Amino acid sequence: MKIKKGFASDNWSGVCPEIMQALEEVNPAHNEAYGELNDPVTEAAISKFKQHFGDDIAVFFVYNGTAANVLGISQLMKSYHAVVTVGTAHLNEDECAAPEKFMGSKILKVETEDGKIRAEHVKPFLTSFGFQHHAQPKVISISQVTELGTIYSPQEIKALADFAHENNMFLHMDGARISNAAVALDTDFRSITVDTGVDVLSFGGTKNGLMFGEVVIFFGKDKGKDFEYLRKQGMQLHSKMRYIAVQFDRYLTDDLWKKNASRANQMAKKLAEVVSQFPELKITQKVKANGVFCTMPPELIPKLQQDYFFHVWNEKPSLVGESFKNNEKEVRLMCSWDTNEEDIDGFVDLIQKYLK
Amino acid sequence: MKIKKGFASDNWSGVCPEIMQALEEVNPAHNEAYGELNDPVTEAAISKFKQHFGDDIAVFFVYNGTAANVLGISQLMKSYHAVVTVGTAHLNEDECAAPEKFMGSKILKVETEDGKIRAEHVKPFLTSFGFQHHAQPKVISISQVTELGTIYSPQEIKALADFAHENNMFLHMDGARISNAAVALDTDFRSITVDTGVDVLSFGGTKNGLMFGEVVIFFGKDKGKDFEYLRKQGMQLHSKMRYIAVQFDRYLTDDLWKKNASRANQMAKKLAEVVSQFPELKITQKVKANGVFCTMPPELIPKLQQDYFFHVWNEKPSLVGESFKNNEKEVRLMCSWDTNEEDIDGFVDLIQKYLK
Amino acid sequence: MKIKKGFASDNWSGVCPEIMQALEEVNPAHNEAYGELNDPVTEAAISKFKQHFGDDIAVFFVYNGTAANVLGISQLMKSYHAVVTVGTAHLNEDECAAPEKFMGSKILKVETEDGKIRAEHVKPFLTSFGFQHHAQPKVISISQVTELGTIYSPQEIKALADFAHENNMFLHMDGARISNAAVALDTDFRSITVDTGVDVLSFGGTKNGLMFGEVVIFFGKDKGKDFEYLRKQGMQLHSKMRYIAVQFDRYLTDDLWKKNASRANQMAKKLAEVVSQFPELKITQKVKANGVFCTMPPELIPKLQQDYFFHVWNEKPSLVGESFKNNEKEVRLMCSWDTNEEDIDGFVDLIQKYLK
Amino acid sequence: MKIKKGFASDNWSGVCPEIMQALEEVNPAHNEAYGELNDPVTEAAISKFKQHFGDDIAVFFVYNGTAANVLGISQLMKSYHAVVTVGTAHLNEDECAAPEKFMGSKILKVETEDGKIRAEHVKPFLTSFGFQHHAQPKVISISQVTELGTIYSPQEIKALADFAHENNMFLHMDGARISNAAVALDTDFRSITVDTGVDVLSFGGTKNGLMFGEVVIFFGKDKGKDFEYLRKQGMQLHSKMRYIAVQFDRYLTDDLWKKNASRANQMAKKLAEVVSQFPELKITQKVKANGVFCTMPPELIPKLQQDYFFHVWNEKPSLVGESFKNNEKEVRLMCSWDTNEEDIDGFVDLIQKYLK
Repeated sequence: MKIKKGFASDNWSGVCPEIMQALEEVNPAHNEAYGELNDPVTEAAISKFKQHFGDDIAVFFVYNGTAANVLGISQLMKSYHAVVTVGTAHLNEDECAAPEKFMGSKILKVETEDGKIRAEHVKPFLTSFGFQHHAQPKVISISQVTELGTIYSPQEIKALADFAHENNMFLHMDGARISNAAVALDTDFRSITVDTGVDVLSFGGTKNGLMFGEVVIFFGKDKGKDFEYLRKQGMQLHSKMRYIAVQFDRYLTDDLWKKNASRANQMAKKLAEVVSQFPELKITQKVKANGVFCTMPPELIPKLQQDYFFHVWNEKPSLVGESFKNNEKEVRLMCSWDTNEEDIDGFVDLIQKYLK
Repeated sequence: MKIKKGFASDNWSGVCPEIMQALEEVNPAHNEAYGELNDPVTEAAISKFKQHFGDDIAVFFVYNGTAANVLGISQLMKSYHAVVTVGTAHLNEDECAAPEKFMGSKILKVETEDGKIRAEHVKPFLTSFGFQHHAQPKVISISQVTELGTIYSPQEIKALADFAHENNMFLHMDGARISNAAVALDTDFRSITVDTGVDVLSFGGTKNGLMFGEVVIFFGKDKGKDFEYLRKQGMQLHSKMRYIAVQFDRYLTDDLWKKNASRANQMAKKLAEVVSQFPELKITQKVKANGVFCTMPPELIPKLQQDYFFHVWNEKPSLVGESFKNNEKEVRLMCSWDTNEEDIDGFVDLIQKYLK
Repeated sequence: MKIKKGFASDNWSGVCPEIMQALEEVNPAHNEAYGELNDPVTEAAISKFKQHFGDDIAVFFVYNGTAANVLGISQLMKSYHAVVTVGTAHLNEDECAAPEKFMGSKILKVETEDGKIRAEHVKPFLTSFGFQHHAQPKVISISQVTELGTIYSPQEIKALADFAHENNMFLHMDGARISNAAVALDTDFRSITVDTGVDVLSFGGTKNGLMFGEVVIFFGKDKGKDFEYLRKQGMQLHSKMRYIAVQFDRYLTDDLWKKNASRANQMAKKLAEVVSQFPELKITQKVKANGVFCTMPPELIPKLQQDYFFHVWNEKPSLVGESFKNNEKEVRLMCSWDTNEEDIDGFVDLIQKYLK
Repeated sequence: MKIKKGFASDNWSGVCPEIMQALEEVNPAHNEAYGELNDPVTEAAISKFKQHFGDDIAVFFVYNGTAANVLGISQLMKSYHAVVTVGTAHLNEDECAAPEKFMGSKILKVETEDGKIRAEHVKPFLTSFGFQHHAQPKVISISQVTELGTIYSPQEIKALADFAHENNMFLHMDGARISNAAVALDTDFRSITVDTGVDVLSFGGTKNGLMFGEVVIFFGKDKGKDFEYLRKQGMQLHSKMRYIAVQFDRYLTDDLWKKNASRANQMAKKLAEVVSQFPELKITQKVKANGVFCTMPPELIPKLQQDYFFHVWNEKPSLVGESFKNNEKEVRLMCSWDTNEEDIDGFVDLIQKYLK
């Protein structure tokens, strides 16, 4: 069975050629395992991160985004602390209780229309401070891009970081799609992370052309003290570390991250344009990055999915805005670094055909 | 500073005389520690539970209600399973993340006006079955009496138990105030637990005249298999076990549980009657057991609290119905096994005085 | 079936009359739950501890010794840290993995002949410092009295505390029988805890005449910061807190602790004297506190146990010195606050009878 | 700084060309994430495992050996169960307490001269069965090849598996170097796993030429029921699953595993031969697979390490046989799939030079 390039997720796509080449080039030599003993490949990748984020950072490679989120947050909390996040956040909804298991902590969720958290959403939880029967709020976790495809402006991030710090809390950013956000905002990584007060970042690449690996970056080296033990205990220390490190080194070189994310964002923009020409389809979230959320008549969905797979979104249990008139369903169409115009044209042709 | 008998909580009261006497009577002899080796006091108490709940039960004494809930539920789940409960449940709100810590599991909360869960509230979570990214719903946890003072009828419990079992789930009951519920429903323990399909019960007594201790009862002996290890690992095995056991033995003898709970319920009924005569105060939940929830003008509260302490309820962060017109606040007035008419008269006199 | 006072454990005995009376006296009034709002009974007990241990302490009541050990140590560690203790320690052997479960940490055990740890035993583990694949040693845990009935001198404790602090580690003391140790050393509590550098103490009373409850004491108030959340999350917060507090208040008043422990120690001394007169029985550990360890011919044991229960010790799997010639077994004979001369005489008469 | 191919570990080597090619070939297409929806690449790899191990298996890909061990064992235990393993096992010594953290369980360690466990080592722990104060032994974990380079014969494995099953326990095998063992025994995978009664296997490849990934295989499909949730909760579900799957598919094709392991084993044999010609160096463990353990004069070690890195072994804290006369130290020399005769010749030349 041949799998078509569809719009299911940006982690259905493969590895981009530049990354594949970097993996081949690093391959021949022997090298220290675990990134230890100043493994030069790992060192070089860390230096590259310092070029982008400044020198006062602590950088740790892990296997995936689940781990980057859980371990990065865990480093800043005790088990009786709590994370405040939005209901649609991966951290809350899509990790099969990995955070609860590893941290032993409570996730306090808020519900918002656009997947973004603001200080006003967090405030009600602060009445728990000092009350021994309640888990103590300690970290606010946001996703940039959010799971609804929306994006925080630097000002919004700063406001939330300031609010967190005023209340003796930390701000975590799930940056699984941070490159798409930076491109959409036409800015660099610094301005939406360290410069606006983010404390710990999960820096992702797998959704933008990498094979595996994710990075936990603490802003303020001290915040990352002893994190290597937590990573090992979290079962996230790769022995052949250089195969993660080299991917990120290349990713941050010659704007590869930007090239891949730009393509994905552009294709989403184009997809949104053509989709919005169909009166039967309605865009439900502003299209800023590489995802398009729209409604579809329910009978259209399985037909399209025969050729282009994508996910129905609002069948999930905990979403806001669950019902639409006429029984439309909301779907999510994700573009990737390798989505091209033909993919979109082919998809749109089918919509046209089935809607007639 | 002398503490007046107020309406703060039924765990502010002391130990009723019958329990105190039972503790004294069991005292002289030496006895097997940990309830082991057929300690006769512990055995006798377990037999007493079998008289009330039938023979096919497994009975375990622990220290408190937090532990009874967490350990009892944990026995029926794996860490990737989830508990569905109401937001106001102790399990969700007032255990400082003890469930998350010990079970490593997710609590899926629903919000309801009266603190009661119905099948319709649980259904949306069932779409997670078989989806590896989501914690798998496995236990529904209800409180009888609920934290809002409301009560499940046997029919409601049965409907929920049936729904749970049809979906390969279990029903847990937090019975911290189960005696107050049984009295309010004018029934026995069986008819609201084992006979309606409850799988595991946290049977409490501390809120109704005991000194310490709580009981985990599994309906179906097999469900409790190996629970002794979980209890020990949960740090809940008392060495001088007989001092818990003897309290429950006495509690279940000569209807002591009923006597104490009846008094508390009657006093709450009386309190509700007099309170509802003040137009400035409004009862917010049906008064079925030993708690009265009502609104008060905010300036009245601190004045009354000088003499009779009680808790303001809706300052808590996660409650429904947070706002009332004229800035009234909702307060909770709990009666206890030793509340008497003088307590209520004195309280009402003060209301009258301050409202003038 | 009547249970004789035997020599099984000091937690088989009942509650001493003074404690029982204190419980009765505190009973009548209503009182703040959870020791909150400056509950005067709990405050008074804490003050009593400050009289004994100095003002710069943080005092927390929990239910039992398992919890005092696990929570007290957990407060000073992260999950990737490790506790070094002796194989025979309760913490390692008799808690059904409660420490591993709650702390997520490793216990590094050493084996010693007398149940005591010295710096030389801990040193080999320090090579793990800085090696990310190994749990990082952080706490040394000793028992005073040890599980083998031996006692640390103040000098030995100080040496170990100094060693711990030089290596950025902490010293925890399991003081389940600390009163027996203080009496044996003819000293006060301070001189074997805070004055010698102990960081956290599990202060026990249940083995010396109390009904339930144990105390976690941090030396240096700051070390106990936020421990109330850990206690709650560890399911160890008692609602009717005053019933634990009042026991310890009384225990520390008029040298009740000393009276009870002295009796137990004296009886053990007497028991050791008479036992050592039988050539068939051999004392295996110095008798310093309230336990007597000796060998017995295996056929003697079940005969004696018909009337006086006690535990065979070296059937446990992880003990040193497991084998004796002639198949003798090692048994443990514990005296309690209520052991009297008749108990010993009766026991010795039986030995004499059966050995003929 | 150029890194020479040394003898530090078989995870210092790179990815073998055949695997690299397989990664490139699988790359172009889009594919279902998470191995879901019958991702054909993942399905094909699972089929390949069934060809080697039979049809009644459950196969799950994870990121590394730590996770394969911890999750695979966790699936078969409850938190109050215990794993029995040898002190030198990775599971006990080199996982920074990952097992304790994730499983909440106790590791019961035995010490053996050759790194192998036999039934007699496990028996003493079985006295804990039914004793609620002790963690309950449930899994025996062995490493094949062991961390000391020794190998279990099929008969030895079967004897241990039978012993485990007779005692209601399971047998886990850490097969990080299972290919080296199979080659050394001149047999296939089945005969040292499923055919001898192993219940769960961590099947490794990274130490034998793969880039990343490890496989948990349950023998008896039912044992793996619901493991996908544990994997996700354990933060080990790779989104681009096919990049793990395709490596193992290729590894099991055309005897690639055998080719790589044979080379490593042969080179170790050769290395042992030449090393044993120096009277100053003494082989300490039988050389069966790809590791050589020998003593060295301490002054020799840093000189050799300037050109060929390798690990000093008995500086680790918990090893048996720690002391040798003349202060020799024990070192571990690992050969890899890409070790060649020149590497050995160069190393031996240096030994000769420095020993003169």
